[in-house]
Amino acid sequence: MRHRIPLFIATLAFGAVGAVAQQALWDRQPVVSPQIGHNGRTTFNIFAPAADSVALTGDCVPPSMAEFNGNTFAVPGMLPMVKADNGVWSVTVDSLAPELYSYNFIVDGVKITDPANVYALRDISSVTNCFIVPGGNADLYSVHDVPHGTVAKVWYHTDTIGADRRMTVYTPAGYESDRAKRYPVLYLLHGMGGDENAWSELGRATQILDNMIAAGTVEPMIVVMTNGNVDMPAAPGESHLGLTPPTTDLPRTMDGTFESHFPEVVAFTDGNYRTIPDKAHRAIAGLSMGGFHSMHISKQYPDMFDYIGLFSAAILPRDPAASEVYSDLDGKLARQFAEAPALYWIAIGRDDFLYNANTAYRAMLDAKGYPYTYVESDGGHIWRNWRNYLTEFLPLLFR
Amino acid sequence: MRHRIPLFIATLAFGAVGAVAQQALWDRQPVVSPQIGHNGRTTFNIFAPAADSVALTGDCVPPSMAEFNGNTFAVPGMLPMVKADNGVWSVTVDSLAPELYSYNFIVDGVKITDPANVYALRDISSVTNCFIVPGGNADLYSVHDVPHGTVAKVWYHTDTIGADRRMTVYTPAGYESDRAKRYPVLYLLHGMGGDENAWSELGRATQILDNMIAAGTVEPMIVVMTNGNVDMPAAPGESHLGLTPPTTDLPRTMDGTFESHFPEVVAFTDGNYRTIPDKAHRAIAGLSMGGFHSMHISKQYPDMFDYIGLFSAAILPRDPAASEVYSDLDGKLARQFAEAPALYWIAIGRDDFLYNANTAYRAMLDAKGYPYTYVESDGGHIWRNWRNYLTEFLPLLFR
Repeated sequence: MRHRIPLFIATLAFGAVGAVAQQALWDRQPVVSPQIGHNGRTTFNIFAPAADSVALTGDCVPPSMAEFNGNTFAVPGMLPMVKADNGVWSVTVDSLAPELYSYNFIVDGVKITDPANVYALRDISSVTNCFIVPGGNADLYSVHDVPHGTVAKVWYHTDTIGADRRMTVYTPAGYESDRAKRYPVLYLLHGMGGDENAWSELGRATQILDNMIAAGTVEPMIVVMTNGNVDMPAAPGESHLGLTPPTTDLPRTMDGTFESHFPEVVAFTDGNYRTIPDKAHRAIAGLSMGGFHSMHISKQYPDMFDYIGLFSAAILPRDPAASEVYSDLDGKLARQFAEAPALYWIAIGRDDFLYNANTAYRAMLDAKGYPYTYVESDGGHIWRNWRNYLTEFLPLLFR
Repeated sequence: MRHRIPLFIATLAFGAVGAVAQQALWDRQPVVSPQIGHNGRTTFNIFAPAADSVALTGDCVPPSMAEFNGNTFAVPGMLPMVKADNGVWSVTVDSLAPELYSYNFIVDGVKITDPANVYALRDISSVTNCFIVPGGNADLYSVHDVPHGTVAKVWYHTDTIGADRRMTVYTPAGYESDRAKRYPVLYLLHGMGGDENAWSELGRATQILDNMIAAGTVEPMIVVMTNGNVDMPAAPGESHLGLTPPTTDLPRTMDGTFESHFPEVVAFTDGNYRTIPDKAHRAIAGLSMGGFHSMHISKQYPDMFDYIGLFSAAILPRDPAASEVYSDLDGKLARQFAEAPALYWIAIGRDDFLYNANTAYRAMLDAKGYPYTYVESDGGHIWRNWRNYLTEFLPLLFR
């Protein structure tokens, strides 16, 4: 109840209780949730006196195993919460390792966000709350009192697609004040279902860049985060397609068009930002489908990128007839590696459903004698890995 | 169920069902909600077979009346939802006027966001879903296929406060491509509990500016949206104060410090953007507490702003001893009006709890013979009014 006293004072200060929408000022939750204690001990609370059952679910809960089509795989686990006499349901998870976690509550069968936690992230069609257990790499995901870069939502035009489209652009601290300095550029691509917000929000790319640049472990760079869904000019709700929920599940993501329009992205970036506009100062990386895009774009335009990062890449065979982009893979890779990229970096988790596809791709690179750096981690096709991969990849760039 | 088929195809395309976090790709809701039909007819749906009661609440529902301390005031209304055999609870609201609406569901007593609607807005400590019934001014709140400005989250340093702080900066379409053109600036301030995100998110300022500039009814301008909470460098979760819920209810918002540091905001803006750095090309406006700030800043620095907008302004007496900013109100207003601002614009709703305070302020201006423009609307202290006021105020600037 301690939050209510200052609000009541605020009420008095304003002389009277206001109208409907004014209610937000007084609409506090009677609990704090989550409460993050020592050694990763975290307690979740929700005031739900009339509910019959409440559970916690998310990546802070051990997964359950399920079967589908003969495959065994992990699904989100659930922890039942316990109701106290005051109507508050609670559960405590001990010893969470430092990490950014996502969670939801399940109240009488409905998956909801935590009413006491305003920090939520959208992952495709799901909205989950998040919290950070500090320590280790997770400290890179928090905002610290260091110089901060600028994050901008910028629209560019593409003739290839015939549309104005939205990108997220990170410019490092100092970009505005030192107007002579030019910077290298990383193009950072999202996975299927993601959009131009994914890396800066779920991926904590802004915080990672601010913190690692401030620490001197990463070169100051511009980071351009595009939208890989050709039929969606911007994230859901941010384009003229409106606020209605997205109904197109695969909005032309892997038909060659996104890859083909990428030189326009690079030209726009070089035309509008103080870049160093050459191959030695350009990197491209992506997760899952974004890894697929990075692989195809970098071999399609072998003079464009010196640094390539494939994070849990969806390296799956594509019908060469589907697009010129997917034709002559052997010849294009030969041209790319003949020019010896400075870094061809592949990372994947041992539990990733794309592990075998990546093994096959590496075997092909090995057979051809094309050099690459390989990082194999624990875990599967999850943001936790992609944030880690970014922290490992960034220090290798432009040095 | 129609959404599930393409996702299943996606599953096949990837060869296997993935791991825990991968689930987001398959985690679709079995209903569409809200469904917006003709003439504002809107149906809300939620799949909750185990729930005992579900209701709709929000500003799309007629308010109820309540009493507190002898005052009668409106509180959010509720509409019970009805359960069908398939476990889906629904309710339909007819004839909603064109507007951006906010809503939540109440499931067995817990206020939740709509699991089928990823579009949510945070208003202080509440997260609500939103939707737009098209038509009239509401069309200005939608994204249309017009040239879009850039929205950036930018950090500036202030010696007065001794901190790096975050602002939202809107630069109009064409700002990057025509590098000779200079622009006027509107400083747009939020209310109590808000932050540097409030006007661009709840206020739809980005969409309003894009649409009205494209229509030629508003001059292209830069809009700077600051954070008026002196003890919070940035919105919750966006500063080194962390992801834990905010516990300071009035983080030094009206003690004179924010007003005193404002020349640093203007200097940063003029130093980092292609502004026209004179009084004739600067406006300041704000809602509620932001109106209070705009009033005090504009009279404290009478040579700085030619256009002043007070939207439902919290014009309440302050102890002159609390800050030099609040001293000598009469003398400072006399100096401000002696220099004849181009526009001093006051708007408030008839049901606003600050109506009488604004009436008293206008009576004082009248008694002194200080000219101003007055707009009185229906309704109370609500975002609906502030969005409308912005659409009325913007066309009056810099012409």
